[in-house]
Amino acid sequence: MPLPTTALPPTLEWRDDALHLLDQTLLPNEIVVERQHDAQQVWHAIHQLKVRGAPAIGVAGAYGLCVAMQPHRALPAAAFRDKLGEQAAYLDSSRPTAVNLHWALQRMQASLGGRDDAGGEALYQALVDEAQAIHAEDVALCEGIGRHGLPLIRPGCGVLTHCNAGALATTGIGTATAPMYLAQRAGIPLRVYADETRPLLQGARLTSFELQRSGIDVTLITDNMAAATMQRGLVDLVIVGTDRVAANGDVANKIGTLGVAILARHFGIPFYVACPSSTLDLATPDGQRIVIEERGAEEVTSFGLRRTAPEGMQVRNPAFDVTPHALVSGFITERGLIEPPFDRQFAALFS
Amino acid sequence: MPLPTTALPPTLEWRDDALHLLDQTLLPNEIVVERQHDAQQVWHAIHQLKVRGAPAIGVAGAYGLCVAMQPHRALPAAAFRDKLGEQAAYLDSSRPTAVNLHWALQRMQASLGGRDDAGGEALYQALVDEAQAIHAEDVALCEGIGRHGLPLIRPGCGVLTHCNAGALATTGIGTATAPMYLAQRAGIPLRVYADETRPLLQGARLTSFELQRSGIDVTLITDNMAAATMQRGLVDLVIVGTDRVAANGDVANKIGTLGVAILARHFGIPFYVACPSSTLDLATPDGQRIVIEERGAEEVTSFGLRRTAPEGMQVRNPAFDVTPHALVSGFITERGLIEPPFDRQFAALFS
Repeated sequence: MPLPTTALPPTLEWRDDALHLLDQTLLPNEIVVERQHDAQQVWHAIHQLKVRGAPAIGVAGAYGLCVAMQPHRALPAAAFRDKLGEQAAYLDSSRPTAVNLHWALQRMQASLGGRDDAGGEALYQALVDEAQAIHAEDVALCEGIGRHGLPLIRPGCGVLTHCNAGALATTGIGTATAPMYLAQRAGIPLRVYADETRPLLQGARLTSFELQRSGIDVTLITDNMAAATMQRGLVDLVIVGTDRVAANGDVANKIGTLGVAILARHFGIPFYVACPSSTLDLATPDGQRIVIEERGAEEVTSFGLRRTAPEGMQVRNPAFDVTPHALVSGFITERGLIEPPFDRQFAALFS
Repeated sequence: MPLPTTALPPTLEWRDDALHLLDQTLLPNEIVVERQHDAQQVWHAIHQLKVRGAPAIGVAGAYGLCVAMQPHRALPAAAFRDKLGEQAAYLDSSRPTAVNLHWALQRMQASLGGRDDAGGEALYQALVDEAQAIHAEDVALCEGIGRHGLPLIRPGCGVLTHCNAGALATTGIGTATAPMYLAQRAGIPLRVYADETRPLLQGARLTSFELQRSGIDVTLITDNMAAATMQRGLVDLVIVGTDRVAANGDVANKIGTLGVAILARHFGIPFYVACPSSTLDLATPDGQRIVIEERGAEEVTSFGLRRTAPEGMQVRNPAFDVTPHALVSGFITERGLIEPPFDRQFAALFS
């Protein structure tokens, strides 16, 4: 069924016993949904960031394992299990730092525990069932985040977001975007400002794309326009996603988040972080312990294939920054809205 | 004389009775110095931003008028003057909003007042003398700014700047960059962080280029990395330029300056604005009265010829923002360092 030109294609789908992935590397210029034929193709899709965003990678890995095991349905149980371990290890190597990928692949394998009587076909069906359960849970998680964040969206308000913690990073309505999508469903008017998010422009390429397609009033700005946009009174609320939250509430997220948080504080604008509660990492006491990935200089010194800075230019390119908990108004999770003091609230949540 | 590959070519030069302009639209990838043959070529060079920055445009206009009058040296005085008015009006139309261009062309014409006895050749020589005087004054202005800003540069300190208020925007050592160049001359070690300055990347293309060529330790960052760079304690001082300062000290400058000022305040980092005292506009009471130019969406939605945001994307693209005077630590001018309260200090300066 061809999509109407204005609809947002799903990040991924299990359809006709196959995984279909939206190729996000081609957005916003081309919309290509790619059927995944084998494990190699899934490996490359994850490796090349055709699918990205921790939750989406987890679900893609789960379905990817189904794709990988499809040719082995006729095997007896023991051989099927051997193959399963091998394929899971292979897929896991596509993005070694993606915690959700590892988690999903482990869960898929564990789901077959205690089914020693079944043959390959039944085990394969059990894998598909488990992948669909993981998928359904991700969708529900996003909805839960949206439900708890929805009261923050006042009719007519302006919301600023950074990077893409959107539907395209999950298999549901996103994390930071979840309250926005639910507001739209509820007919609550809102305006969204999307930071373009240099150097990789996830805001321009992905957030703008998905919100525009969904019919939400979205305006793209360069990162350095956030201050002037707030100064003009256009922003009532900031919602961003996060990659990891320390036990004290310090937030690691895409580079630039710290700046947005400081600006929001300066202008008295609430700054919220949306995430599944699994992102709260109580084993990490504070943000100083979070190691920040430093990426290659060419992301900063060139654009596409065009060099925009002198040759041999010295560059910093940290992929993330850490926003101290004192700048965070609250966390929007599927378990509820968490307000300060975060250390005590987090501990209560998990006790 | 070919330049050593590491030297910074001058923004412009009067050499062999001709104007030579560095084509800044080709930086940092190509270094092309273009001899200006006629008025049309100068008009296009200014119009296409081959030369940019208020002071540099003024000097280019003055020399441009000499180039334009060269073919008319044989004319008698009256006819020479008629031609002069015509050519000045023509050059003035190349960038209608450039106040310095208009000012320089007016001054060039006024310089011939009271020389009714002279012929075309003598008047032409007088024009060249006046253009060289304007040029020398710009060079001296930059040196003066540098001298008054130099004490702010402590050995080993980190200085962050935004956009290009550098040598390439003037015919001397720049405004915001002047204290940095003088520090280097004095052997004072310093590190500079250059914001790339989206959407037009003047920081990546120009500031990085000129500081690197000059052998100053410069690191290029995306605009949204300024906060994390400050958080890491790498920035001791911010110096930016300005397009216009209101009577109360509010500062209009390239989009993103406001954000940098707020971040500097948050981290307790001094925030200075470097400018010739002619930039202080006492006729404008405060920054709210400064009209901000809104530029085309394509600067934000594409890069070179490559589209980076969805088609039909809604965009804001203000070219400037206004930093309230309360966030400004001081102004570095050729007349001295001006500290708060700015309204009283400005009034004293001009009384």
